[in-house]
Amino acid sequence: MAQVQDVARDEALTTRWVYSFDQADPKNRKLLGGKGANLAQMVQWGFPVPPGFTITTEACNEYWARGGKFPEGLLDEVGMAVLRLERTAGKRFGDAFQPLLVSVRSGAPVSMPGMMDTILNLGLNDLTVRALANQSQDPAFAYDSYRRLIQMFANVVFNVSLEPFEHALRAAKSKCGVERDRDLPADSWKDLVATYLKLFAEHVKQPFPQDVNVQLELAIEAVFRSWNSPRAIVYRKAHGIPETLGTAVNVQAMVFGNMGDDSGTGVIFTRHPSTGEPVLFGEFLSNAQGEDVVAGIRTPQPIADLAHTMPAVYESLVALAKQLETRFRDMQDVEFTVERGKLFVLQTRSGKRTAQAAVRIAIDMLHEGLIQPEEALLRVDAQHLRQLLHRRLQGTDALQVLAKGLPASPGASVGRIVLDADTAVEWAQRGEKVVLVRPETTPEDIHGVLAAEGVVTTHGGMTSHAAVVARGIGKPAVCGCDGVHIDFEARQVESNGIVLKEGDVISVDGGTGTVYVGEAQMEEAKMAEELKELLSIADDVRRLKVRANADTPEDARRAREFGAEGIGLCRTEHMFLSPDRVPLVQRMILATTSSERQDALSKLLPLQVSDFAAIFEAMDGLPVTIRLLDPPLHEFLPREEELAERLDALREQGASQGEIAETEQLLRQARYLREANPMMGLRGSRLGIVYPEIYDMQMEAIITAAAQAKRQGIGVELEVMLPLIGSPKELRVLRERMEEIAKRTMEREGVEIGYRIGTMIEVPRAALTADQIAEDAQFFSFGTNDLTQMTFAFSRDDAEGKFLNVYLDREILPYNPFETLDTEGVGKLIQWAVEAGRKRRPDLKTGVCGEHGGDPASIAFCEDIGLDYVSCSPFRIPVARIAAAQAAVRRRMTG
Amino acid sequence: MAQVQDVARDEALTTRWVYSFDQADPKNRKLLGGKGANLAQMVQWGFPVPPGFTITTEACNEYWARGGKFPEGLLDEVGMAVLRLERTAGKRFGDAFQPLLVSVRSGAPVSMPGMMDTILNLGLNDLTVRALANQSQDPAFAYDSYRRLIQMFANVVFNVSLEPFEHALRAAKSKCGVERDRDLPADSWKDLVATYLKLFAEHVKQPFPQDVNVQLELAIEAVFRSWNSPRAIVYRKAHGIPETLGTAVNVQAMVFGNMGDDSGTGVIFTRHPSTGEPVLFGEFLSNAQGEDVVAGIRTPQPIADLAHTMPAVYESLVALAKQLETRFRDMQDVEFTVERGKLFVLQTRSGKRTAQAAVRIAIDMLHEGLIQPEEALLRVDAQHLRQLLHRRLQGTDALQVLAKGLPASPGASVGRIVLDADTAVEWAQRGEKVVLVRPETTPEDIHGVLAAEGVVTTHGGMTSHAAVVARGIGKPAVCGCDGVHIDFEARQVESNGIVLKEGDVISVDGGTGTVYVGEAQMEEAKMAEELKELLSIADDVRRLKVRANADTPEDARRAREFGAEGIGLCRTEHMFLSPDRVPLVQRMILATTSSERQDALSKLLPLQVSDFAAIFEAMDGLPVTIRLLDPPLHEFLPREEELAERLDALREQGASQGEIAETEQLLRQARYLREANPMMGLRGSRLGIVYPEIYDMQMEAIITAAAQAKRQGIGVELEVMLPLIGSPKELRVLRERMEEIAKRTMEREGVEIGYRIGTMIEVPRAALTADQIAEDAQFFSFGTNDLTQMTFAFSRDDAEGKFLNVYLDREILPYNPFETLDTEGVGKLIQWAVEAGRKRRPDLKTGVCGEHGGDPASIAFCEDIGLDYVSCSPFRIPVARIAAAQAAVRRRMTG
Repeated sequence: MAQVQDVARDEALTTRWVYSFDQADPKNRKLLGGKGANLAQMVQWGFPVPPGFTITTEACNEYWARGGKFPEGLLDEVGMAVLRLERTAGKRFGDAFQPLLVSVRSGAPVSMPGMMDTILNLGLNDLTVRALANQSQDPAFAYDSYRRLIQMFANVVFNVSLEPFEHALRAAKSKCGVERDRDLPADSWKDLVATYLKLFAEHVKQPFPQDVNVQLELAIEAVFRSWNSPRAIVYRKAHGIPETLGTAVNVQAMVFGNMGDDSGTGVIFTRHPSTGEPVLFGEFLSNAQGEDVVAGIRTPQPIADLAHTMPAVYESLVALAKQLETRFRDMQDVEFTVERGKLFVLQTRSGKRTAQAAVRIAIDMLHEGLIQPEEALLRVDAQHLRQLLHRRLQGTDALQVLAKGLPASPGASVGRIVLDADTAVEWAQRGEKVVLVRPETTPEDIHGVLAAEGVVTTHGGMTSHAAVVARGIGKPAVCGCDGVHIDFEARQVESNGIVLKEGDVISVDGGTGTVYVGEAQMEEAKMAEELKELLSIADDVRRLKVRANADTPEDARRAREFGAEGIGLCRTEHMFLSPDRVPLVQRMILATTSSERQDALSKLLPLQVSDFAAIFEAMDGLPVTIRLLDPPLHEFLPREEELAERLDALREQGASQGEIAETEQLLRQARYLREANPMMGLRGSRLGIVYPEIYDMQMEAIITAAAQAKRQGIGVELEVMLPLIGSPKELRVLRERMEEIAKRTMEREGVEIGYRIGTMIEVPRAALTADQIAEDAQFFSFGTNDLTQMTFAFSRDDAEGKFLNVYLDREILPYNPFETLDTEGVGKLIQWAVEAGRKRRPDLKTGVCGEHGGDPASIAFCEDIGLDYVSCSPFRIPVARIAAAQAAVRRRMTG
Repeated sequence: MAQVQDVARDEALTTRWVYSFDQADPKNRKLLGGKGANLAQMVQWGFPVPPGFTITTEACNEYWARGGKFPEGLLDEVGMAVLRLERTAGKRFGDAFQPLLVSVRSGAPVSMPGMMDTILNLGLNDLTVRALANQSQDPAFAYDSYRRLIQMFANVVFNVSLEPFEHALRAAKSKCGVERDRDLPADSWKDLVATYLKLFAEHVKQPFPQDVNVQLELAIEAVFRSWNSPRAIVYRKAHGIPETLGTAVNVQAMVFGNMGDDSGTGVIFTRHPSTGEPVLFGEFLSNAQGEDVVAGIRTPQPIADLAHTMPAVYESLVALAKQLETRFRDMQDVEFTVERGKLFVLQTRSGKRTAQAAVRIAIDMLHEGLIQPEEALLRVDAQHLRQLLHRRLQGTDALQVLAKGLPASPGASVGRIVLDADTAVEWAQRGEKVVLVRPETTPEDIHGVLAAEGVVTTHGGMTSHAAVVARGIGKPAVCGCDGVHIDFEARQVESNGIVLKEGDVISVDGGTGTVYVGEAQMEEAKMAEELKELLSIADDVRRLKVRANADTPEDARRAREFGAEGIGLCRTEHMFLSPDRVPLVQRMILATTSSERQDALSKLLPLQVSDFAAIFEAMDGLPVTIRLLDPPLHEFLPREEELAERLDALREQGASQGEIAETEQLLRQARYLREANPMMGLRGSRLGIVYPEIYDMQMEAIITAAAQAKRQGIGVELEVMLPLIGSPKELRVLRERMEEIAKRTMEREGVEIGYRIGTMIEVPRAALTADQIAEDAQFFSFGTNDLTQMTFAFSRDDAEGKFLNVYLDREILPYNPFETLDTEGVGKLIQWAVEAGRKRRPDLKTGVCGEHGGDPASIAFCEDIGLDYVSCSPFRIPVARIAAAQAAVRRRMTG
């Protein structure tokens, strides 16, 4: 008793580096690490946790601050904590009769690979092993435990390879003629321990420490040292984890799952991690220690079987799971051990789960009253939700991979290979499902893309024609499959050593960029009831509006179904690409005078009017942002090589002069319009300046369509967007011209249309001069795709596949800036532009319409800098709604 | 007398809008306008100026502020000023015996087109014309003067066309059978006046005002109104002239140069405006009014002739010129009139002059003690100096223009047309001077470019291969001559309707982008003694260092001669382009493994070592900034079309398998390396990351060369520059690798070399993350060419000629941002980067190495934001030295 009093008094005076589980403050994860905090929490809530203590992260930091020396007083505190642990456990460390054994584990505030693994059975030596054998009445168990310690100690503390130890174990088994460890008799284990001690001394150059306190000191120091292992340092740098966090050390009394058939070890999830169903899920291995489960020598049994084999334990487990969920208010992933019929929890943490399960669990727990609506929202990884919104392939494991390429447009499809657009249309018309496989696609292939279930190209990147069109119409596409060779003469494709004929079936996964040989099963996208409920919560919580990038009435309708609150980007170029219009567009491009150009445009005008009218109808009452023509004109012409070949063919065939002249003219114009860097060439508003007739026609069509809609009682909230503006005066000139056209058109139609004029901010200079630009812009829509290209000087087509992958692999960039907005560079420009723009025009509307508009991390940035909306592809709308709500909640939480 | 006293009293109380020349404060140009201030100054200094008064710019502003009404009290003040003028002139306004006549002119604080022209002879009417006839004894003169007034009044005040008046004059002359105005008899003039009065009433819808005060009011108002004429508004907007300046009005007593042979009018420059020689230069027309000189009916006589015809007047003129220069301390452009032997000055201003004259005058005036050294500096337009530093064509007026293209590389040359590089070399070897004319040039043409006197291409822009190479080696080039068609079969070129054979002589002006048929004379560049003196003053005054962009030892030497204080940009890619190296470079590019690549590079290593060693030698003791390889690798391969053609030819000729395979491989690689937007593709430091062997070799070569130099006692101040950095980690990875190579090489060489590592800031993101980048960069060199391209999203090759010209013509951009740094956008990035970089690293060295480094306006910006140096092409160095000094002086002046 005197001793215990001493301990208590000393603790009160000096405790600084060490906290017993029952004394520590579980909320202080920074001090205790994640594992230590959870253990303390469970102990204090009365869960059956073996007792133990945590050495704090501060001790680790002090260790390093002192150049690799234990902090003053640390070992004294550890000694006292051990005394306390002995008292609780009723055993003594190093005792010849009732020896206390412990495990030692690292536990940083954030989970981190590269840290020290567990050391089990610490406290065994030549003396205590005999006590364990006596106590357990199982010498084989005791000596097996001892040899495990020696081996782990050599490996973890002294970095010695496991191989010599494993070799000795194999030799012993072969000598006894047994295959399984458990069949080795106790004497063999005894002999093995002797061998192991020799091996230890040989490799470590010092004998295995028989002093249990030395064992403990060395183990603690090994944990501290592992904080600065090369792997840990690299990981921290890559993930921006501060070096100053440090790791805690958890020392815990051992319990044994390997003490016979009434013992065992297992893992449970408190709900099903794939479906989210509220059932216990997990595995159990009887008469085993944790590492045996990992080794996979015996197959564990499903947790449900325990109900029959160990009903009392199962009952305790069910109760435990329930209590853990109630206490931790989330689905738990629990490690436990049963020692001679008694259940112990060794660790618990929030369980990983699929997107589907995450939604189900969040909503179930909300209904069960465990969590609040905002918490339910945060329980879902918005990024993962995407997989619920597209069709997916199933059973692909059984299929051969034909090729890997860029995941250019998500979704999945199955169909027969066709090698050109005409064949695609022909086969599709007779009811076949086809996949168009091409070197790359051009505007002249558009009817083939429309007819096919999916597209595969051997060239071209994420912004190639095929990719952009496929994303626009929501079909899967895999682009840039370098390894695929198309043989047009033999009508076949070859890749990966496989030859497929036109007509053979392939399966396309646009989400991963994989093409499979043969027919995979399809899983349809489903919008579960739980997801709908979560979305409705999100809609109540979020501040950011969510709009869609939609170019067609079908897209617009789909976007509305997914919950879009308007169109943030309606690209008009895709309207120019439909096969019946391409000839008109080409005539317009070939025009050499303004009046010829106007003539061709006047034929396009009624078609554009009907395009816009149909979109206004679909979005009745919601805002629609229409972007005037953006791409360089040569995108509407066939490629030069193709024209040159066509010309050769025409000449060989002796075609008419007229036909030849026409093709010659096309080729001439294609050559004239060729650009060294089309991304930075004659496109966007530059077209509007150089060929004003084009924008004139578009503006007239927009206002005419709006007038028609208004007459039919359709609500029109119109926003006209000028692309690629780079200087304030450029916008002013175009705005004044567009207003003039609008005024004239309204007078002609006799209808007054309210509308806004704004601009995409996608050129760095637009962001830099945003204060002046805001004088003429009623809204800014950040075109983050191009803004990222210009700010990085990355041509996306060239970067992806040529060097961006190297930058990501080598962690020179932390993430792909085309997927997640680069807040350090591009984000800075956006933030400046928003601030400067609002200063000049307080009611300036701001949004993002690049692909980042559907990316959760980017959406959080948009929330933080106070944009008004994000706009993304229709399929991403639900993701964006959730992500916007989460961002709002998190912002509120951090103040 | 009572009246005069009244006037004096009233003036003291109320004068606000009007100042007599003898009362105004000449320093207040803002209030009086430039012309008014100079007139007041001359009057107060006692020069023979006809008396008059100025209505202030504030009166103009008040007129507009009151919605087009004269300010309260203005007319009263004008009335009083007229009274004062009558007293001084001894004549009275509207008087039937001694009528005072005046001129009315506008005069804004800055010279501005679109403002009202002069009205002369105001004060004439049916009554006073008779008095003038009597007084002058010359009725023809009097009625001619009257009809001039009527016509000017109709035209200037009421915007009536001159045509009906001219028609009447022609009719009168034809009726009298005379050709010259002066031969018309007085009666005809009288009749013409009657006709003019009728014409006036007819077109103006009111009679010509006989009330001279009404005449004056209308004329004043016309001046005020001309401030807001459409042309004036457009000009002000384009030039950023504030609307609030307003214009003054000058009313001045008339003197007459058309009162006989002892009268006349003329213009003198007080020194020669072309050469700067200190001689009087100008013209004189006897018996004429100012407008007759403009009309050009009679040829004026050289001013020197006056020494014989009117020696007294000439003597007065010489004295006047001297006094004006002494007073105004600059060369003057003086308008004067001689009325019956008496000399009057009507206007004086600083005279326009050529670059050569400007330098000469500045230095002469400095020696004469008229101005101080800093003033001498400011008297020169640095931009104009360029024309003194290159060879120029002379007598081109006599030559036909073959074509106009982009002025891609300055200078001039004359030579025979050659159509391919081999011919160029062959002809040059036999002593011919040749000009290479190609569609565009590639690395394989480099020997032709080196052999030729100049280059002309039909395609390609300011950054095309031909342009870059030509600028690098200081040869003239004209690129992108769209209209030139090369017929390789006929070995001839056609353009502008002219056909020239290979071998015909052309003259190339790379400064204007003009190609002439035939041989122009050449004027060698000369560095006059005066220019040298001015440069030495500049060197004393400037703060900015001036370095050169130089890639070869010859460039380096030339740069040093021009006064460069180091090399700011030594591009290493041009070293890869010499004909003996291209095969090695191509082998390096075709390598499929790192070791193959290293093998090819090891052959390049000794060549690079000698490149660098020669440059260190040339720059002995001065800093040399070497940029590691920058362009995309495909620039070192022949063009795809060329390779395809070559392959076809080889196959037709039945060439060997090996030859064919090699070409096939080149073509394959060229296709693989093809990029959609090479400007934003795999180049610069991205090469260093993806193919590290290239930079390894370059760094080894640099250090080896530096060690060699050091052993020879040559001073090496080395700076290694990484191009196209876009993220901090990219720089860190490369810096660490380069330092490792440097360390190894120094160990091998046994020599310690001090060096700096820095980066080009040419990607917007580098500027945005400059604080982090400065951690690894010891200097920032702003690559303003690329930074401008990225910030504007302007591909220079595509913009110039396709749309940038439209933007400049329509004044959407105020100037070409590739010539003068865009301070609003690009400049903002630079300024932020400098501030952020210096905060992190106070001793960060900063400079500009784009073409802007030689542009005076851009240099002024560099001075203002405190950069350390500018770097420009060798020929621009003198310009930069002067511009840097001017910027320093101006900055000191504005505080």
